[in-house]
Amino acid sequence: MKWFPQGRRRTEAPRRQPRVAAVVSTKVEFGELTPETLPFLGQAAYIQLELFENLARAMATAPTLADKASLSTAARFTLRKHHRLAEEIRALDEEPAVVMAPFAPAIDAFRAATTGATWHELMITNLITAGMLDDFFISLSGSLPDGVGSRVAAILSRRPRTDVVADALAVAIVADPQLASPLAMWGRRLVGDTLLVARSALRDANARGPVDESIEPAFTDLIAAHTRRMDSLGLTA
Amino acid sequence: MKWFPQGRRRTEAPRRQPRVAAVVSTKVEFGELTPETLPFLGQAAYIQLELFENLARAMATAPTLADKASLSTAARFTLRKHHRLAEEIRALDEEPAVVMAPFAPAIDAFRAATTGATWHELMITNLITAGMLDDFFISLSGSLPDGVGSRVAAILSRRPRTDVVADALAVAIVADPQLASPLAMWGRRLVGDTLLVARSALRDANARGPVDESIEPAFTDLIAAHTRRMDSLGLTA
Repeated sequence: MKWFPQGRRRTEAPRRQPRVAAVVSTKVEFGELTPETLPFLGQAAYIQLELFENLARAMATAPTLADKASLSTAARFTLRKHHRLAEEIRALDEEPAVVMAPFAPAIDAFRAATTGATWHELMITNLITAGMLDDFFISLSGSLPDGVGSRVAAILSRRPRTDVVADALAVAIVADPQLASPLAMWGRRLVGDTLLVARSALRDANARGPVDESIEPAFTDLIAAHTRRMDSLGLTA
Repeated sequence: MKWFPQGRRRTEAPRRQPRVAAVVSTKVEFGELTPETLPFLGQAAYIQLELFENLARAMATAPTLADKASLSTAARFTLRKHHRLAEEIRALDEEPAVVMAPFAPAIDAFRAATTGATWHELMITNLITAGMLDDFFISLSGSLPDGVGSRVAAILSRRPRTDVVADALAVAIVADPQLASPLAMWGRRLVGDTLLVARSALRDANARGPVDESIEPAFTDLIAAHTRRMDSLGLTA
């Protein structure tokens, strides 16, 4: 129960392992903390829209045309996730904008707080927030009813063949090693805010009490995957 | 030969006809004005990136969540066009960013000049510039060699089932008829700049001489389609 708000457990993850798509490995049963399906879909769909908006902003300010072009692949994958989740909402005879609306203020505030001051910080944000939130919603989807859970997991698991965000960051950090320390610090700042968003997806999250011990492994996995992402860039998580 | 720079021939198009996807109807043979395939693909691909950037900006500043969500469909279609064109470039063993680069300064300047001062102006820009440039590049593609021309035409012809940009504008103008006059004026301003971009795609366009009479119907079609788009919004082209 120490994961929150004290935050990050870390260092258990092996260091310097090759970059891999982070996958939540522990099957966690969220039980009565599992959100209802529609709010889950609404929040997940809106998060993808906001993740997209950060990617689009990074495209608009990309230092090179090659960066802009490769980011466009990540942007398109994120839009596709949004659209597939919106289709799930429509399949339940609801309007996506209506179902997403309750989540907009908090997620907008989250995005505003995590945009960063530089393109490289924004890129770390793109890497970390998308990675952690996709992982967490995949994990949560395992407790949703029947088909919808596995469809959501499939939707959120689709990634471009190459992680263009991580690759662009890796190139930038190799070219300018001075970036490493401030970007590592920025990455640490992001974790707390991102865990708050993840936690807000749980049913009755507003109670803000300690989270049930049984689901702690889900958060431990998030932190471990985060650490691997940072490690792969040579950044201390 | 009056189409340029005096601009728009208009009023021939029937008024108040239902909104339809504008299709260039006249088969024009561009002959020796046809660009080489690679520069054509590079310019077309970069234009889609910039059209996307305007859509992403409109999403970021959308007045409602419903507008944001529906614009995301247009954004995704535009990114898909960019990616398919980039694939055509890669199929010729070239790197898209390299082939696009020569066109970036002029298209960036075009976008900066046509962003508009308000969300509604930006939306008119999204409607008009995408419509005219897609139409023109489809028309030009008819003079490209063999398969690539028809593939490009297919790529650029794909549109969402509903024109979300036109629909959002139509709703806004009905809700606030005061918008009509300034938006009509903005639409007229866009035509000249957009025709300049279209013209720049022609081989030896920099010569800036009068355009050969034989291809004038292509521009006449662009203006006619533009007039239909504006008409469908109740705006005078």
